[in-house]
Amino acid sequence: MIKKDKKNLQAELGAQALVDFMRSLYPISQELQDYLRENSQFLKVKKNKIILKSGDICSNYYFLLKGIMRAFIVYDGKEVTIWINPENEIITSVKSMKSQVPVVESIQALEDCEVMVMTYDTVRYMYENFLEMNVVGRIILEEYYSDSEERSIISRIPSAEKKYEHFLNTRPELLNRLPLKYVASYLGITEETLSRLRRKKLKGEG
Amino acid sequence: MIKKDKKNLQAELGAQALVDFMRSLYPISQELQDYLRENSQFLKVKKNKIILKSGDICSNYYFLLKGIMRAFIVYDGKEVTIWINPENEIITSVKSMKSQVPVVESIQALEDCEVMVMTYDTVRYMYENFLEMNVVGRIILEEYYSDSEERSIISRIPSAEKKYEHFLNTRPELLNRLPLKYVASYLGITEETLSRLRRKKLKGEG
Repeated sequence: MIKKDKKNLQAELGAQALVDFMRSLYPISQELQDYLRENSQFLKVKKNKIILKSGDICSNYYFLLKGIMRAFIVYDGKEVTIWINPENEIITSVKSMKSQVPVVESIQALEDCEVMVMTYDTVRYMYENFLEMNVVGRIILEEYYSDSEERSIISRIPSAEKKYEHFLNTRPELLNRLPLKYVASYLGITEETLSRLRRKKLKGEG
Repeated sequence: MIKKDKKNLQAELGAQALVDFMRSLYPISQELQDYLRENSQFLKVKKNKIILKSGDICSNYYFLLKGIMRAFIVYDGKEVTIWINPENEIITSVKSMKSQVPVVESIQALEDCEVMVMTYDTVRYMYENFLEMNVVGRIILEEYYSDSEERSIISRIPSAEKKYEHFLNTRPELLNRLPLKYVASYLGITEETLSRLRRKKLKGEG
């Protein structure tokens, strides 16, 4: 019984965090808040678990309450990290979700994670029946598209140092939470180069 | 007089095309359609003209009626093309627009272009006063974010052939309209490699 209560409490707190996240973007109605609470599920995801596999069709939006997730592709037997996101972010494949086509990338938990899950149908229902949900969606997508524009510019710059600086400017907190290999793979540089740049910065030479 | 009439007609047709584009995404109200017609401007942009320069703050959304535009950055004295878009696309820098910060990339016309211009204030006004405009914005951003996700994956794949195939699958019509140097720069491969891949495909060996 105690265990069940704890689980319920976690789910309630998770739903509240999701509602608060949306309310911080736009004043959504009580009706939408209630719908969201009733139609999102709390889920724990173990470290290293893959929640979406290349070739699958993405059917969920995940609101990351705790932990870090990344997307990666495998090319020539090597993993290439596409993005890394910490808590308070929405995790999904917009393309797969929108067009119901298989994803190219896989999505993996890099720490023990806690998420709130919203299904494709739930989000579609909210878009169609609560017009204000489109304001929330539009604001989130502006944010994500901006980040993506920036990532695509950074990925084109051939300087490892500039890439590293960009990472420090945008995701400083992740560097101490993650094995260097994921950050190196995300930046498209070797672990050795990343270690060298990091030491240089720490010594204040950079 | 005849010239003025022609100009007015072009502006009217341009505004109609913009309204039709939005209506194809969502049934927007007559009121919003009228507002859009009254608050968008028709503009011709000469080939090679830069409509947004690195360091500027982006203050307009452009709906491309005719022509091709690209975004590029200059790195180490070399131009790197970030995206290339043909007609019926919205051209802007979402990041600069959203946060009113300077853009990194420049935006340039690659053909003689015709656009409908909407200012930042016009679009903000529509988002705030016509809730359905957020549905349109959300749908456009889903589309653009999907494309951007795909571009970021393709930019990480080190195979020139795969990059070229991706371009053929997504933007086949642009290859014959553009100097190869822009396509090569967009794909991050040399013009020579692009020519070779193209010949190979044309010969049916690829």
